[in-house]
Amino acid sequence: VNLILLEPEDFLSGDPRDPSCDRGPQRVRLGGRQLRHVREVHRAEVGRELAVGVVGGPRGRGEVVALDENALEMEVLLDGAPPPPLPVTLLLALPRPKVLSRLLRDITTFGVKEIVLLRTWRVEQSFWQSPALEPERIRRQLLLGLEQAGDTVLPRVRLRRRFKPFVEDELPGLAEGTLRLLAHPGSSLPCPRGVSGPITLAVGPEGGFIPYEVEALEAQGFQAVTLGERPLRVETAVAALLARLS
Amino acid sequence: VNLILLEPEDFLSGDPRDPSCDRGPQRVRLGGRQLRHVREVHRAEVGRELAVGVVGGPRGRGEVVALDENALEMEVLLDGAPPPPLPVTLLLALPRPKVLSRLLRDITTFGVKEIVLLRTWRVEQSFWQSPALEPERIRRQLLLGLEQAGDTVLPRVRLRRRFKPFVEDELPGLAEGTLRLLAHPGSSLPCPRGVSGPITLAVGPEGGFIPYEVEALEAQGFQAVTLGERPLRVETAVAALLARLS
Repeated sequence: VNLILLEPEDFLSGDPRDPSCDRGPQRVRLGGRQLRHVREVHRAEVGRELAVGVVGGPRGRGEVVALDENALEMEVLLDGAPPPPLPVTLLLALPRPKVLSRLLRDITTFGVKEIVLLRTWRVEQSFWQSPALEPERIRRQLLLGLEQAGDTVLPRVRLRRRFKPFVEDELPGLAEGTLRLLAHPGSSLPCPRGVSGPITLAVGPEGGFIPYEVEALEAQGFQAVTLGERPLRVETAVAALLARLS
Repeated sequence: VNLILLEPEDFLSGDPRDPSCDRGPQRVRLGGRQLRHVREVHRAEVGRELAVGVVGGPRGRGEVVALDENALEMEVLLDGAPPPPLPVTLLLALPRPKVLSRLLRDITTFGVKEIVLLRTWRVEQSFWQSPALEPERIRRQLLLGLEQAGDTVLPRVRLRRRFKPFVEDELPGLAEGTLRLLAHPGSSLPCPRGVSGPITLAVGPEGGFIPYEVEALEAQGFQAVTLGERPLRVETAVAALLARLS
């Protein structure tokens, strides 16, 4: 029941994100890997209706009108907006590559649109050399997260390999006007529930932020909060924090 | 910084869970796989202090007093209680084996003590043949979850391969006096936040419960609730629900 995400170039009738373009039914043609995916995962056959969306654009329904070995054609009606985003900017100490892939997918499913992958003291140097950081690999995980959520709007992912310049020079602008929280198992302040405004949330690596990093973030108005006395794995903690805050 | 979980037979001085036993320092001896684990993961060396707990018993600190190729000995003082449990009974449609392992670990880390792995219509038959369901494999994941949480109390895991008899005959007793919730993406009732009393939470498989199953659970007093319009993967949904409820 996941969304099928279409790229503008799949449309035979021009870019569907163009606001001046006709909003009636449009024709889409899929081949190659996309065709295999739609046949295997969505069991596409002629006459079947599928949920579709355009990357960076609207969503709607598509009806399969032609299907052979080389291509699938759909008539799509794009009359819906993607679900509202989660107003959370996530600063995440770069996790190990395998965890990163799953996390990027989940964070995207939750609706986060601003992700900063950050170097901190306890992030292993080797993580920055991982192929999981290649833009195409990151994009693949984001798309999987969008498909799961029925969303179309890709998050922006920034890689920041220098903690201090990021926190001192870039973070003040990024976090301005938001509630600033720092997940820190040592804190005694419980993480707030159901916050309605925008949030900037910082999550450390396995082992946590070092005291210098906690102080640097506190100097930028971040408050240390905890989910309780049971430390969670990073990927579980991120899901738990986003669920608690939203 | 995880806990080292000790089994009663690791104690040279008798069962440490025995309430009549001396609460002074006790001597523990580890060999084989446990020895390797403590050396590699906890970098044990003579004089080092480590967090320890006894499966099913108290927790405390241990000091390494002897270490060679074959054995490690610790002097341990068990003066602490494990963290309080999370008063949630989790009914979980049996997920695919790889997901099951991670989920059992995470659910345990959250402090859930009652887990029912349930057959539902959309659970693939083959999942029940997986070696991941062998008691020793399940126990291994539970222990990993306890070590992560600093907990010592193993959850009870029940496998129930027949939905109807379980829901009609066993569930009423199990769920008595608890708030009964059913995670259902189609519901319009938001999942409650920060519930203080005991809860029974039912979570379906990928694709959800079928209408018959929803009705059977509703007949037992379960209320369908949702985390919003973005469907999460099962393992992420479980973490999100437990975080939201607690």
